[in-house]
Amino acid sequence: MTITSGAIPPRDMDPAAWGDPGRRASLPPHARRWLAKEIGLPDRRTPATPMTGLSLPESRIDESVRSALVEVVGEAHFRDDRDTLLRHAGGKSYLDLARRRRGLADVPDAVLLPADHAGVLAVLRICAERGVAVVPFGGGTSVVGGLSPLTGEHPAVISLDLRRLADPVHVDAESLTVTVGPGIRGPELERKLAAHGLTLGHFPQSWEHASLGGYAATRSSGQASSGYGRFDELVVALQLATPRGSMTIGRGPASAAGPDLKALILGSEGVFGVITELTLRVRRLPETVHDEGWSFRTFAEGMTALRRLAQAGLAPDIARLSDADETRANLALAGGNKTRLLKGMLAARGHRGSCLLIAGWEGPHLVVRDRRSAATALLRAAGGIRLGATVGEAWRRHRYDGPYLRDELLDHGALVETLETATSWTDLLGLYDTIRSALRSELSRDGARPLVMTHVSHLYPTGASLYFTALASRDDEDPDGQWQRAKERVSDVITSAGATITHHHAVGTDHRPWLEDEIGGLGIEVLRAVKSVLDPSGVLNPGKLIPEPPK
Amino acid sequence: MTITSGAIPPRDMDPAAWGDPGRRASLPPHARRWLAKEIGLPDRRTPATPMTGLSLPESRIDESVRSALVEVVGEAHFRDDRDTLLRHAGGKSYLDLARRRRGLADVPDAVLLPADHAGVLAVLRICAERGVAVVPFGGGTSVVGGLSPLTGEHPAVISLDLRRLADPVHVDAESLTVTVGPGIRGPELERKLAAHGLTLGHFPQSWEHASLGGYAATRSSGQASSGYGRFDELVVALQLATPRGSMTIGRGPASAAGPDLKALILGSEGVFGVITELTLRVRRLPETVHDEGWSFRTFAEGMTALRRLAQAGLAPDIARLSDADETRANLALAGGNKTRLLKGMLAARGHRGSCLLIAGWEGPHLVVRDRRSAATALLRAAGGIRLGATVGEAWRRHRYDGPYLRDELLDHGALVETLETATSWTDLLGLYDTIRSALRSELSRDGARPLVMTHVSHLYPTGASLYFTALASRDDEDPDGQWQRAKERVSDVITSAGATITHHHAVGTDHRPWLEDEIGGLGIEVLRAVKSVLDPSGVLNPGKLIPEPPK
Repeated sequence: MTITSGAIPPRDMDPAAWGDPGRRASLPPHARRWLAKEIGLPDRRTPATPMTGLSLPESRIDESVRSALVEVVGEAHFRDDRDTLLRHAGGKSYLDLARRRRGLADVPDAVLLPADHAGVLAVLRICAERGVAVVPFGGGTSVVGGLSPLTGEHPAVISLDLRRLADPVHVDAESLTVTVGPGIRGPELERKLAAHGLTLGHFPQSWEHASLGGYAATRSSGQASSGYGRFDELVVALQLATPRGSMTIGRGPASAAGPDLKALILGSEGVFGVITELTLRVRRLPETVHDEGWSFRTFAEGMTALRRLAQAGLAPDIARLSDADETRANLALAGGNKTRLLKGMLAARGHRGSCLLIAGWEGPHLVVRDRRSAATALLRAAGGIRLGATVGEAWRRHRYDGPYLRDELLDHGALVETLETATSWTDLLGLYDTIRSALRSELSRDGARPLVMTHVSHLYPTGASLYFTALASRDDEDPDGQWQRAKERVSDVITSAGATITHHHAVGTDHRPWLEDEIGGLGIEVLRAVKSVLDPSGVLNPGKLIPEPPK
Repeated sequence: MTITSGAIPPRDMDPAAWGDPGRRASLPPHARRWLAKEIGLPDRRTPATPMTGLSLPESRIDESVRSALVEVVGEAHFRDDRDTLLRHAGGKSYLDLARRRRGLADVPDAVLLPADHAGVLAVLRICAERGVAVVPFGGGTSVVGGLSPLTGEHPAVISLDLRRLADPVHVDAESLTVTVGPGIRGPELERKLAAHGLTLGHFPQSWEHASLGGYAATRSSGQASSGYGRFDELVVALQLATPRGSMTIGRGPASAAGPDLKALILGSEGVFGVITELTLRVRRLPETVHDEGWSFRTFAEGMTALRRLAQAGLAPDIARLSDADETRANLALAGGNKTRLLKGMLAARGHRGSCLLIAGWEGPHLVVRDRRSAATALLRAAGGIRLGATVGEAWRRHRYDGPYLRDELLDHGALVETLETATSWTDLLGLYDTIRSALRSELSRDGARPLVMTHVSHLYPTGASLYFTALASRDDEDPDGQWQRAKERVSDVITSAGATITHHHAVGTDHRPWLEDEIGGLGIEVLRAVKSVLDPSGVLNPGKLIPEPPK
């Protein structure tokens, strides 16, 4: 396995923006006018401050540690150039971007690119011995602070970039599994699997950039996870490199050999070790992919329809029900004649405050036909109006565009951030109301109200997730505080309602203060005990996931 | 919540036998003749030695500990009468029964029946402080030594019988969950759920006796788990009582809030704490239940058919493919004219060494119809011959009878024991051959060969489980060693093949020596670290699951 040394491949994102700059689309005038009216967004441009002016601190890695690390990874894969450091300054949350757009960034002292499992083990041993913190780095798409280069109690921190662990890709066509390195990203893996007629079926919004190892470390969930399963359900086996050595977990498709330690590594966010290999369940490429739109008169009616589908074993592979505000915003931002016609038709049929559902079906022709036909009957009985494939296809075309729109909105002076949770069907509507009210009240300012858009996705027989997008005019006096206060309030609301603090964004730094509410004091002690076995010197991703013990 | 104090309800099993003595059926003459020919079983009776002659040791619980425990549970629920102690002497493996049939039993020093979670917490605190080992006891059906009253490093041991924690049963009909105490058993829960039109769908062979808490503690799998999911997949939330206090884990249908600690409690076999409450996914009672038989020419062809079903998302809810020897034995033991006709028909169609598949379908009429129809096409294409519903219905009628037949065989001087594993589809046939050869060679003796019967059950897209039943003439000179040698050899074979040491029987004492092969040295250290947080004095189920640290 070799990669071209020298420049880091161009897939790295700009520190202060998402993805490929060529994909940015500017906000059309009708959308700007709508936002001005809706959230009081003034007509202004607030471009990012270039980072050229930012002076980075001296590296805190001493020469002997540097030599030891270089000996493992090679000079070409020990990086401390300005550009590489800035591209490993952290993740892609609103606060991450807002800070970098103001020309501020904390960077690691170096970025290391080990070649393989043995290289990762060797780097971890050196870092543990010499007290250097390690932030495992995959695609760089964390939105919860999981990649912030915190040192903890150590003098220095490195970013451990896993992109070179992208091979081998071994496909077992009989058992339908693939074994991969953690550094491979979705598009490349799907290309390789497609050559075997296979797919992983995991498509989160970060799919173009996120790494497979990142999915595992954060218990990711994708847009098609109602059908294909959450990422943790796809993991058959994995290998973990720790400062204490290796762990390989997962034998056969299922086991009763004590507690499932795989579940302890999935979601460990780099604090127990570095995932260096994954064996994943894959499926045959679907013969049929059919996306369609449905409208419901109210969010509650749509939820009931989804619950019935999920409990009848008829959940679509993709299901995404927007509330009235998200539907209204999507239609307003799309604009155009077709949208006007659609709105007219819905109003005529009593769906003036329509809640749009995107339902996607994938699989063998016959199976999709049977399932769609049963589901259609159920959706109609629940009050749904079928809108046809055009709406569904439009969604699929733009499914990875959200973060580009965010960059554009940031340029226009907006605050824009998302948060998510999951709860039982019984509590879903009540939780929606409470979170939405909290966001609207916290983000209202000077008579302007925020836009809070919500959708239900990720259906389970016992409940579902709720995903919120808040859009407001940014308070440039206190841009961080404006969001932090709202986020804190909502996090309190979520935990006191008995819902989970995160359904698929992970904990990182942002949800860490609420983890004890979720798993209890003994749960936290258990996590600390596991960490003390695998990472006794505490160098792995300090400040993430596990709250500090009381002093 | 009250129960009648006084005598322990009659559902307790005889220490040296399974279940309800009224259900024992004697082995018909044709079956005895067949076994004589097949495994050289002599015509003899080896009835169990009555336990009346067994003198139990003095209780090792001192008076002050006894008073403290009685204060928690009440005099009526602190039992140290001979009958109660013998009924808590351990589980129901072949070796357990064989020993008790010889009039030997190790018993706990007392049996405690706490009333609720608070009672369990209080008992655990006292035991931790005073150094009394605790064996949590549900239905008493462990077949891996999980219930043996070992003291570890402590002077005494109690059995903590959880039957009184059988209420409340709270049904959430909207989210389709039920919240139950761990002491409730399958039949009672199903009765209560049926009143709401619901079912849990978990039916292991031990169903008539095993407790729900036991399912959770051992990561149980039932006969319909291919359709309804393993027990661990049904658990939405749970509560654990430990000597350090309570843990409650599980919020919403799914979460990314760090590692899934639920998975650390499931399968913990009482070494981390006592499960005192479970919230479980339930389903609507199926409109249709249809069982049918299929025949395949070879085990390999049947496996391929099952793999295709599982990978197409068409696995039957119940799937159980017997190898040629298991099929032959089942037909021989059933006897009768119908069986002869069936054998003739199969031979005429080239299935002389037929491998019988039981396929069971459950669910809404339309869904079952569509799935069966797609599966039928696939099974036919894979060479299957449909045998109709009679064979399937016969299986369902006798699905819980196996352990009664075992008692009868023990009376006739047989060794009879089962073991199981799981692996990928790719390795399934090879592993079958290796384990079968090992069992046949280890259990051959004086020219007589054992009968080794195998079935594939529990289908997953990436693999399946293998279940073996060995039947041989018992060596009365060394009855324990005869089985132990075979079991050790097979356990070595399983772990060196990379398969799991247990798919659904759990670890207990019997698989403990192989756990490190499965999860590695660091995996064992992780389990020990978790235990040291939750059970620092090590009173919980000593000698089970986690191997001792090296001295």
